[in-house]
Amino acid sequence: MSSSGDLEGRSLDSVLKTKMPALGIDLGGTKLKAALVCDQKLMSEPKRIPTPRGADKIIDALLQIIAEFRKDHLIAGVGIATAGIVDFSTGQVIGSTGNLPGWEGTRVKALIEGRTMLPVVVENDANAAAYGEFRAAGLENKSCIVAITVGTGIGGGIILNGKLHRGAHWAAGEVGHLRIALDNRRLCTCGLWDCWESFAAGRGLVMTCQEILAGMTAGQSPIAQHADQLTTDEVVEAAFAGDIIAGRAMSMWHEHLCAGLVTLAHTLDPDCFVVSGGMSEFIDFGLLRELLSDRCLPRAGEKLEIHQSVLGMDSGLIGAAQLLLDSLVSSVGSRA
Amino acid sequence: MSSSGDLEGRSLDSVLKTKMPALGIDLGGTKLKAALVCDQKLMSEPKRIPTPRGADKIIDALLQIIAEFRKDHLIAGVGIATAGIVDFSTGQVIGSTGNLPGWEGTRVKALIEGRTMLPVVVENDANAAAYGEFRAAGLENKSCIVAITVGTGIGGGIILNGKLHRGAHWAAGEVGHLRIALDNRRLCTCGLWDCWESFAAGRGLVMTCQEILAGMTAGQSPIAQHADQLTTDEVVEAAFAGDIIAGRAMSMWHEHLCAGLVTLAHTLDPDCFVVSGGMSEFIDFGLLRELLSDRCLPRAGEKLEIHQSVLGMDSGLIGAAQLLLDSLVSSVGSRA
Repeated sequence: MSSSGDLEGRSLDSVLKTKMPALGIDLGGTKLKAALVCDQKLMSEPKRIPTPRGADKIIDALLQIIAEFRKDHLIAGVGIATAGIVDFSTGQVIGSTGNLPGWEGTRVKALIEGRTMLPVVVENDANAAAYGEFRAAGLENKSCIVAITVGTGIGGGIILNGKLHRGAHWAAGEVGHLRIALDNRRLCTCGLWDCWESFAAGRGLVMTCQEILAGMTAGQSPIAQHADQLTTDEVVEAAFAGDIIAGRAMSMWHEHLCAGLVTLAHTLDPDCFVVSGGMSEFIDFGLLRELLSDRCLPRAGEKLEIHQSVLGMDSGLIGAAQLLLDSLVSSVGSRA
Repeated sequence: MSSSGDLEGRSLDSVLKTKMPALGIDLGGTKLKAALVCDQKLMSEPKRIPTPRGADKIIDALLQIIAEFRKDHLIAGVGIATAGIVDFSTGQVIGSTGNLPGWEGTRVKALIEGRTMLPVVVENDANAAAYGEFRAAGLENKSCIVAITVGTGIGGGIILNGKLHRGAHWAAGEVGHLRIALDNRRLCTCGLWDCWESFAAGRGLVMTCQEILAGMTAGQSPIAQHADQLTTDEVVEAAFAGDIIAGRAMSMWHEHLCAGLVTLAHTLDPDCFVVSGGMSEFIDFGLLRELLSDRCLPRAGEKLEIHQSVLGMDSGLIGAAQLLLDSLVSSVGSRA
């Protein structure tokens, strides 16, 4: 128990810090976004720059963008969401993606803290996004939330009793690679067979459509003309324009999405799924809810909710900044 | 902080209670087993009786067996592992299996506590088994353990930071029903298609063997003679005796087992899997480890361990009793 009852057990320092914004940074393979965040909300439109190549240049770019924000603002710290696997305790990138060559092994937290003297947290982007959605959507009273980002691939983050489940080797939530078929039908970009994302991400939808189109002529479906160069947008547009083949691919895509959600529901029994990412705007949530309740065991399925993202493309940035802000409160709290 | 430093913060009452055994009971569809448990070990061979039909008769049988043990022993309480879904906070069975008709809805904890004046915990059998393995195998320093029971079906329990993850609706760990194929290839006994257990449990092995045998003659494989009445034991025996078809079914069964483990590894990133159940004695653990490390993403797979059960068929009974004993220490501790 603290003696400073007026501050609900927290020091004046910690209370002041929580009123300060944090700088949130989302580091992706092609671009780097940064914005000030307070109370799990953006304080301004994110600033965007292209991601430079190579670890040294990325660190320089991070330091520069932090310095720019500090010219005009007092900030409590920096939260960085990055592609790749991150040891949250040390803030080191311990596994990278092909999108960020040379990034693996970088001690991001130590490097940025050393040069800025600000507190820094570094988190995997899908985990940060899950945390952002959790904090922004008022889901704090839920015991288990699984957040899924469906875009070119599928990422995920698991929040249990308000905390990210990061796994024994910081690799939990790689739900894009749960195995959804047995027959080595589709090779995933990760090199494994039949990962969920090879069916249920954007690329998966295109491949499903191409499988149905195999051997068809343009007379049967106009998109058969250039089936081998089909894009996600084309499939979606054709489906909405009434193309039967594209429509069939879209309905199979919902089945494929559902299959992975069923597995997650039976494993974790969450209160709700939160679905975000570029592909999520094409999901018929009514249909997906119906499929899920039909394909789940009664207990896990009947009260299971599916929410659409409230933060959209900014969830990683906001989540990382909020992780930093929340860490200040709890770490100061635990010292009190 | 407690003032009674000699007792490490615990009351004399709680210390005495932890030296007393608890009665562990495993309630299955066909038999009910009971034994005294202390320090996650059996104190004697379990007593077995057939499970009576109907909730009232099961409760009577439970009361009678508890009374018999109390004639000769002081016990700290009773831990009951039961088939079906259990609300652990109230000890009520909220979802049952076909094996225990009429059991759903029974307020087991309230009924037994009211009649015995002993503390009682009631837990799903797969969860109890996972907890037993966790406590008995010295895995307390691990952050994430997934225990799998492979028998006629597949059950599971997830231990995170020393606590069972029970899910938002008490239905977590139903890993037998994670979806492992997309084509409605096998109907599971639960009524859903392509559940993991319909491929990787005992029944799944038999079905895999039957699929390979389809259209074969006894000249090609002796077990083709009665393919439609094949049992798990026959497939396993034929494989060990050199039958090529049965051997092929066994190796596919290892692939099917691996597929579900990959999904769990990528979702939860556990320190280790613990595998128990009647079918686990037929697993080639060397092969399974090799498959798993080949089929997992590097981070999740490279340090992932697979242990064989240390408690065997008694894990549910021991786990339930140990849950009771541990709950006494922590509940007394939190009042101190």
